[in-house]
Amino acid sequence: MEATMRIGILGTGVVGRTLGTKLVAQGHGVRLGSRTAGNERAVAWAAEAGAGASAGTFADAAAFGEVVLNCTAGVASLDALEAAGRANLAGKVLVDVANPLDFSHGMPPTLTVCNTESLAERIQRAFPEARVVKTLNTVAAAVMVDPSLVPGEHELFLSGDDRAAKGQVAGWLTEWFGWRPERIIDLGDLSTARTTEMLVPLWLRLYQMFGTRLINFHVQRAP
Amino acid sequence: MEATMRIGILGTGVVGRTLGTKLVAQGHGVRLGSRTAGNERAVAWAAEAGAGASAGTFADAAAFGEVVLNCTAGVASLDALEAAGRANLAGKVLVDVANPLDFSHGMPPTLTVCNTESLAERIQRAFPEARVVKTLNTVAAAVMVDPSLVPGEHELFLSGDDRAAKGQVAGWLTEWFGWRPERIIDLGDLSTARTTEMLVPLWLRLYQMFGTRLINFHVQRAP
Repeated sequence: MEATMRIGILGTGVVGRTLGTKLVAQGHGVRLGSRTAGNERAVAWAAEAGAGASAGTFADAAAFGEVVLNCTAGVASLDALEAAGRANLAGKVLVDVANPLDFSHGMPPTLTVCNTESLAERIQRAFPEARVVKTLNTVAAAVMVDPSLVPGEHELFLSGDDRAAKGQVAGWLTEWFGWRPERIIDLGDLSTARTTEMLVPLWLRLYQMFGTRLINFHVQRAP
Repeated sequence: MEATMRIGILGTGVVGRTLGTKLVAQGHGVRLGSRTAGNERAVAWAAEAGAGASAGTFADAAAFGEVVLNCTAGVASLDALEAAGRANLAGKVLVDVANPLDFSHGMPPTLTVCNTESLAERIQRAFPEARVVKTLNTVAAAVMVDPSLVPGEHELFLSGDDRAAKGQVAGWLTEWFGWRPERIIDLGDLSTARTTEMLVPLWLRLYQMFGTRLINFHVQRAP
């Protein structure tokens, strides 16, 4: 049996709650953080998710976690992390699940940063003592925690400047969510997060077309 | 047996020559166009590719073709099409294979247009009488003309504002290159070309990592 961990999750949307519920079910301690203490959705989640689940501010969640998952909306991530507190992130693995999507002009959204930079790099630059690993941002919440919902082989991508942190995250993806190691592609340093954040518009288009979130990409290649 | 066609190809790089060679081998007439008449690479290609192959300027190629394939470098496409001549493109299907990649700062390249616009849309706006269809831009030249080089199932995407033109192009992809209809995904109007042009940086990263161009994506989804 694997050791249980304390995990701080920033963001009370579908992604944060879905990851949190799965982690609590596995016996981990999870604190779901939001802008304000007593956020209704977070409190309701903590009541339902069972023993090990709690709710608090961004700072509460970040302080609680041995690892922190950024599940906020990308446009709000830097503010949320600022509120979480630099000291509460220092030295910790910060898994960046967010996408910098601007829905203010309707569907399809545009990216607020891309091509020459990524949200993940902005976060790393703003919080140099955090060990940022980008992953999970290319699939829907349900698929993040249960890859078998999408039939056949399909992959997750990892980007990060800290090799050891990426290794830990890859292990957690397998242990927590069932992503087989051969289905996790380490793309390299954090600048490669540009490529996966830029994949999201295609995913969104396919979601619109096919009417299901149970979609992912499989990289086919010659041996 | 299918009727042979006259096809104008703009661009004498690997993509233009590879498509041209395959089309000539099938009995089509192909004129490869470049900035100047007598371009060495184009002339050499025409000599080797066999009966039906010829070389000329961009305007020669566009005038020759019943359909025109834009295989120029994306950063040069609008100039090449201007040189090809508005009248030579009017009413014709213009298959845009180009990607707006800027290699001037080394690898990885950045996109010169993305997110809120695409190269394909710029081309359509500059040449409103052409019937622009974006496709083939997400795979290497060798794979464009022989999808079986990549094992397993994997897809091409189509984007365009002209439904009839997309239907014709889909038929050609099958007839010319062997892309099975169920492996061609029509994403919708030309704005969806943003999503496939933005897929190219991930493709490039995978190419760098795996050291093969025989790579493509397969969309997996729940039924």
